[in-house]
Amino acid sequence: MKLYDSHRAPNPRRVRWVMAEKGIEDVEIIQVDIMSGEHKTREYRDRVGVPHVPSLELDDGACISESVAICRYLEALYPEPNLFGHDPKEQAIIEMWTRRCEFYLANPIMLNVRHSHPALAALEAVQVPQLADYNRVAAERFMKTLDRHLAEHEFIAADRFTIADVVSAVGLDFARLIKYRPPEDLTNLARWFEACRARPAAKAGV
Amino acid sequence: MKLYDSHRAPNPRRVRWVMAEKGIEDVEIIQVDIMSGEHKTREYRDRVGVPHVPSLELDDGACISESVAICRYLEALYPEPNLFGHDPKEQAIIEMWTRRCEFYLANPIMLNVRHSHPALAALEAVQVPQLADYNRVAAERFMKTLDRHLAEHEFIAADRFTIADVVSAVGLDFARLIKYRPPEDLTNLARWFEACRARPAAKAGV
Ligand SMILES: N[C@@H](CCC(=O)N[C@@H](CS)C(=O)NCC(=O)O)C(=O)O
Ligand SMILES: N[C@@H](CCC(=O)N[C@@H](CS)C(=O)NCC(=O)O)C(=O)O
Repeated sequence: MKLYDSHRAPNPRRVRWVMAEKGIEDVEIIQVDIMSGEHKTREYRDRVGVPHVPSLELDDGACISESVAICRYLEALYPEPNLFGHDPKEQAIIEMWTRRCEFYLANPIMLNVRHSHPALAALEAVQVPQLADYNRVAAERFMKTLDRHLAEHEFIAADRFTIADVVSAVGLDFARLIKYRPPEDLTNLARWFEACRARPAAKAGV
Repeated sequence: MKLYDSHRAPNPRRVRWVMAEKGIEDVEIIQVDIMSGEHKTREYRDRVGVPHVPSLELDDGACISESVAICRYLEALYPEPNLFGHDPKEQAIIEMWTRRCEFYLANPIMLNVRHSHPALAALEAVQVPQLADYNRVAAERFMKTLDRHLAEHEFIAADRFTIADVVSAVGLDFARLIKYRPPEDLTNLARWFEACRARPAAKAGV
């Protein structure tokens, strides 16, 4: 299998982190230079279908894009350690938290950075300051929800590290690009974030 | 089980549609009046964890929020007809399309409507016109991708109706609230949309 990756981009990093947690080493990593628009070439789009990284090319040539879909597929091939849940109820709770963390934390952070960091102007037709602001407010609102939750839970979605933690930690880490730090009074969030960053897999390909 | 629902809202409609496709009838539907803020009461938040519908309350009292997490859980309980895929590869492709349709079509449409329809002002601290515009452009860009794809495929993610079609059709249908119609030259999209709307399950609780 081949992973179309872009080494500083947060969505492919979710996949690399999951591969590292699972010790997956038989995936060839191919760098795509999104800043110069390599993902918008006809060749890339014909292969993958959309101008995005990551994409996983299977041995039969089929390409799967969308970070979390790729991670769940890798879990089916490499079940341990379990990151998506063991039974339908646990899977539902982990997916619930993963979606919350993606919609209300990671994606707002990415949109904030894309619409405020001068170096990322190439990725948008126009950077829209109102979008940067709206998404920052949204992300901080959810950080408070998460901080309250983490007061009573070591990890976000289960009694162990899961895909919800990957999505959230990658999102928060990406905000460092604009030197953003979460509000200091969110001490549970800070404790959890440091624990995630200290995992060996956090360093995968960074 | 109980479903916390709000009968005009698009995210709960995804769940109702899936229930109707599967003939699920043993879920009690509880209406939550989001326009008057019933989902923001302490009672609702304590039960569900976030101020959102839908949420599925299991018989043990646990609540699962997030529409697609609820639908996937219902698929585990009621496997037929299959909407999420039979094997890991098919599941990955269906999740890929579902996520594309959610991120680049349904959610942009919802944000466009929330930030432009006077009747929805109650749901946002401030309606931001730039957000409405940005999301309309994003949704129309993806409609073109989808139209090209549907020129060669009857349904979005497989050779049959799946959760990707539910998410997309509910999203497009919601745009009727602002009298929006997709560009007329997207004839494959129009053909697919009419086929979805003609399904008996499309009428579930509308
Ligand atoms: N929803 C997609 C998002 C993919 C995405 O937006 N990737 C970024 C890099 S992190 C990208 O390809 N950006 C290129 C661009 O926006 O032109 C996923 O989860 O994989
Ligand atoms: N990502 C959530 C979205 C849930 C959501 O935003 N629901 C809307 C109704 S469609 C809601 O609860 N709105 C209330 C509000 O925004 O205050 C899901 O997929 O279920």
